[in-house]
Amino acid sequence: MSKTVVMTAPVKGELADLTEFTCSLARTAASVTRSYFRKPIDVIQKMDKSPVTIADRECETRLREMITERYPGHGILGEEHGFEGKELSEIWVVDPIDGTKSFISGLPLYGTLLAYTRDKNAQIGAISMPELDEFWIGVRGEGCFFNGKPCRTSGCRSLEEAILMTTSVEYFTPQNREKFQSLSQKTRLRRYGGDCYIYAMVASGWADLAVETGLQSYDYMALVPVIEEAGGVITDWSGNRPNLNSDGSIVAAATKELHQQALEILGR
Amino acid sequence: MSKTVVMTAPVKGELADLTEFTCSLARTAASVTRSYFRKPIDVIQKMDKSPVTIADRECETRLREMITERYPGHGILGEEHGFEGKELSEIWVVDPIDGTKSFISGLPLYGTLLAYTRDKNAQIGAISMPELDEFWIGVRGEGCFFNGKPCRTSGCRSLEEAILMTTSVEYFTPQNREKFQSLSQKTRLRRYGGDCYIYAMVASGWADLAVETGLQSYDYMALVPVIEEAGGVITDWSGNRPNLNSDGSIVAAATKELHQQALEILGR
Repeated sequence: MSKTVVMTAPVKGELADLTEFTCSLARTAASVTRSYFRKPIDVIQKMDKSPVTIADRECETRLREMITERYPGHGILGEEHGFEGKELSEIWVVDPIDGTKSFISGLPLYGTLLAYTRDKNAQIGAISMPELDEFWIGVRGEGCFFNGKPCRTSGCRSLEEAILMTTSVEYFTPQNREKFQSLSQKTRLRRYGGDCYIYAMVASGWADLAVETGLQSYDYMALVPVIEEAGGVITDWSGNRPNLNSDGSIVAAATKELHQQALEILGR
Repeated sequence: MSKTVVMTAPVKGELADLTEFTCSLARTAASVTRSYFRKPIDVIQKMDKSPVTIADRECETRLREMITERYPGHGILGEEHGFEGKELSEIWVVDPIDGTKSFISGLPLYGTLLAYTRDKNAQIGAISMPELDEFWIGVRGEGCFFNGKPCRTSGCRSLEEAILMTTSVEYFTPQNREKFQSLSQKTRLRRYGGDCYIYAMVASGWADLAVETGLQSYDYMALVPVIEEAGGVITDWSGNRPNLNSDGSIVAAATKELHQQALEILGR
C-alpha cells in the first residue's frame, strides 16, 4: 500500500492550530505503527511476545512527548500510559492502535484515535487509518473532513434501509446481544469487523449505523466530533452524549430519526 | 487510496502465459469495480436499487469477453452469468466481486477471484483486492506471490497459537456454528469479516486458519492454488481437496498439523 499523506483539514477558526497539531500527531503515529505492521513472526516474538503492546507503547510515548512539548498545560489520557493531568480542563485522549486484533492479524483495519477535549467534551476528533491512507477529522463548528474534503453522513432515516456495523457480537453481554439482535434483524444489511473504521463509514455516508458496547473513553471520544460534525448523532445506549465518564456503550447514526429508532430498541 | 499496479507474477514455466493473462483479467476487473465503489447514494439508487449486481455484471461481462477472445476453447463459470462450456477440460472460474456486503458498505475489503482449472482442478488462482492495491496469485508448481514477491504461510502448528478468521458466524447452520465455536475456543485469537481476504492473510502468514461454509465454487476455486502454493493446506470440512463439485465448506490452514487439528473438530 502506498503512503500518501492526506492528514490535513482546511480549518481557519479558533481551533485551527489545535487541528493542525492533531493532524501532526496522526502523521507521527502512522510512521510508528507502520514500522511494526506485518513484521515477520520471529522478529515480533523476540520482543516479549507482546508486539502490539510495544507498537502501542512506542506510539503513545511519542504522542505524549509531542503533546507535552507543545501544550504543557494540557492533560493526557491514553490506553497504555494512563491519565496525566486529570484535573486540567484541556485533555488529549489517544488510542495509538485501535483494532489490536486486526493489527496482529495483518489486517490493515487498525486505526489511531485522537481527541482534544475541553471540560470533558470533545472539540476535535480524528480517526486515522495508516495502512489505508484514509483520515477523518471532525472539528467542532467546522465540519468533518475525509482526506481533507468535507464529508457527510447519509440521509438514511429508517432501520429497514440501514446498513448496520459492529466489530463483533462476541463483545456483547448476553442481554445486550439480545438487544443488538433485535435491532440487527430490522436492518437492511449487517457488516462485522472494523473497530473505529465502522464510525468512519458512517461519517462518510457509506454505512448508516454503528453500534457497540464496552468501549473505553480512548475508544470513543474521538468518534464524537467525527460523527456529529458529519451530520450524524452519537450517544450511549441511554441516549446521552458521550463524555469522558460515559459507560462505553455507543450508537452512532446517520440521522436523528434513525438514531431514535435504534435507541428505542437498545435503550429498553 | 492510490492505485499502483502490482498485479504481476514472475512465472516462467508452462503456465506463464495463462498466469500473465490472469493478471490482466485482474487489472481489468479492478478498473471496472473501482468505478462503482463508494459512489454517491442517489447515483447508486437510480439503477434498479441493485448497484452491486450492476458492478458485478459489468465486470463479469468484461472478463468473459476477454477470456472468449483469448481462449475460445475454454469454458467459463461466473457468479452472474452462469456456466458456459461445462464439458470442456479447461475452465475459468470468476467472481467479479467477492464481499458484496463490504462493497456496498464502503469497506475496501471486497475482492475479485479468478481461477484457471483443468479437469476440475485449479492450476492458477488469484485474489485481487482492488482498493488495497494487494494481489495474491498461486500458480501450480511455481509458488504463491503477493504483489509480485513469493509469500509463505506461517509455521503455526497448534490451535492454541493460531489466529482464526471467518467472515461471519451468521453464515453457519446451527450445527456448523457449534463446531465452529468448539474450534474457535481453542485458538489464540479470532477475527471476523473479510471474505476472500482472510485466505490471503493465511497465504502471507499473518493469520493461520480460515474457516467457512456455504461457499460456491466461484468463491473457493481461486483459493486452492493460493493456499497450497504458499505452503498451506486447504480442504472441505471432510478433508477433501476442493474441486468444482465440492460442498462449499472450507478449512485453510498454515500447516498440515494445524489443518489436521481443525479437521478433527470440524469433520466430526
